[in-house]
Amino acid sequence: MLTRRSFFARSGLGLMAAAGMPSMFASAVSAQDATAAGQTPSKAPFKLGFAGFTFCKFKLDETLKMIKSVDVHYLCIKDFHLPLNSTPEQIAAFHEKCKSFGVTGYGVGPIYMNSADEAKRAFEYAKKCGVKVLVGVPCEDGTVNGKKKRVASRKLLETVDGLVKEYGDIRYAIHNHGPDMPELFPTGDSAIEMIKDLDKRIGLCLDIGHQFRFGADPVKAITDYKDRLFDLHLKNVSENTRKGGAMPLPRGKIDLVAVVKALCAVNYTGCCSLEYERDMADPMLGIAESIGYFRGLMDSVR
Amino acid sequence: MLTRRSFFARSGLGLMAAAGMPSMFASAVSAQDATAAGQTPSKAPFKLGFAGFTFCKFKLDETLKMIKSVDVHYLCIKDFHLPLNSTPEQIAAFHEKCKSFGVTGYGVGPIYMNSADEAKRAFEYAKKCGVKVLVGVPCEDGTVNGKKKRVASRKLLETVDGLVKEYGDIRYAIHNHGPDMPELFPTGDSAIEMIKDLDKRIGLCLDIGHQFRFGADPVKAITDYKDRLFDLHLKNVSENTRKGGAMPLPRGKIDLVAVVKALCAVNYTGCCSLEYERDMADPMLGIAESIGYFRGLMDSVR
Repeated sequence: MLTRRSFFARSGLGLMAAAGMPSMFASAVSAQDATAAGQTPSKAPFKLGFAGFTFCKFKLDETLKMIKSVDVHYLCIKDFHLPLNSTPEQIAAFHEKCKSFGVTGYGVGPIYMNSADEAKRAFEYAKKCGVKVLVGVPCEDGTVNGKKKRVASRKLLETVDGLVKEYGDIRYAIHNHGPDMPELFPTGDSAIEMIKDLDKRIGLCLDIGHQFRFGADPVKAITDYKDRLFDLHLKNVSENTRKGGAMPLPRGKIDLVAVVKALCAVNYTGCCSLEYERDMADPMLGIAESIGYFRGLMDSVR
Repeated sequence: MLTRRSFFARSGLGLMAAAGMPSMFASAVSAQDATAAGQTPSKAPFKLGFAGFTFCKFKLDETLKMIKSVDVHYLCIKDFHLPLNSTPEQIAAFHEKCKSFGVTGYGVGPIYMNSADEAKRAFEYAKKCGVKVLVGVPCEDGTVNGKKKRVASRKLLETVDGLVKEYGDIRYAIHNHGPDMPELFPTGDSAIEMIKDLDKRIGLCLDIGHQFRFGADPVKAITDYKDRLFDLHLKNVSENTRKGGAMPLPRGKIDLVAVVKALCAVNYTGCCSLEYERDMADPMLGIAESIGYFRGLMDSVR
């Protein structure tokens, strides 16, 4: 407890007392007795992070500096920052560098995988990286409207089913792509439809922006697929159609307050990782506004 | 309502249908039926703005560009952007320029006033500017600890009492300065103590940062002085002592969630104006994070 003397010294009122200042400050002094509460930690069960793709135009050092500048501590690692064929030494050096910026690489991906070999390699990479979430896009060569395309692959998911059993504690999260890629998991729903009879360690990295651009409701997906929700790409978009473009989080049409409430309701304990795809060569202003906004939503959970 | 055909065209699923894609997309289609709710407007009764002092190192054009970049629309005008001796033509040009950036100058100040003449001039300026809030620091020459200082002036407040009656619809908001200036309204409380018997149009521009740095509770001040709360300088600080330095809003010690709740509880209808005093030569990153954060708090009010 402060003594009267130390309080005066601390508050600068000693000067006033010396100057014989009048009683106008009496109530200011009594206000000192009020509890200056300080910020209460968020009760949101999930973490705030970044999808590595946000920084596709930046090297690792620049990326980590940018992440630190907005006081974020989790990153889903993209292969342009840590190649799939990295040695254990390179991986250790990567993690060491992340740590020096206060950042933890919590997952890897999205990784496109087009064969059983590529799927195996991705799991091995995730294991070597020491992460428990592998964001993947399991595909095979196909034809859409006469054009060659990578299409969603049930066959490869059956391979993945074996891999999650083999690796044990690595969860596989399918990333959805919205209306631009109807053949490659446009929505979380389309992924769930394809995995519902497979191992429960296969689930979603729900991209709420693409979900919304498809015309689907991210809140419904979070609620319906809560047991399969392993990662989340956080974004906002200008409209719920294919035309919907990336926006700073406070300015889009997705009701992120409802998203946060839904994530709390299902006790989501993973990351909400900002994938910011606007002004990608100079994104920090939008990133800062977005991170600030989501923190505001998280802090409002009490 | 969308027909099946138009839906397919819109969603891009026409491509898939043509390619004979399997039933994996069935649930994606049904998800279309879900209501994509869209963002609900904030029910917070107050507005988000800027204290002009935030941009003390920038000319008006730069300032307005910066304000627009974070989608804010209210500015309390500082005299370095619009001098007190501006002509009606200069004031009209100022407002026109603000309008071109989607910004409204809603108040003026803080204006230091050291005499009845200066007080009169400030009211005349506010009237010519067409604003209803005049943020002021009513002072007189004094001596503190043997040094000449501007000190809070009851005498000048009695002049202001006449001026609010004369001008009718201009409210006078005293800005508090925290522990650095114990002689010049360190807290809202010290201002209230000096004006409690004066016209109700004399009240506070509560600087919550200085209030907190003094060791007082901003939430208590908002609640206790709700009828005299005409403007608010929004900030966060690193600690509740004189050493407390400016921080981005999500990172300081003031519980801004509680501040927002209190402002809603008292139905505050004025502005919360960010006065960001960190990295003032290059403040946009911290400003964007701060504005995003406060919007998140505001949007969480439902």
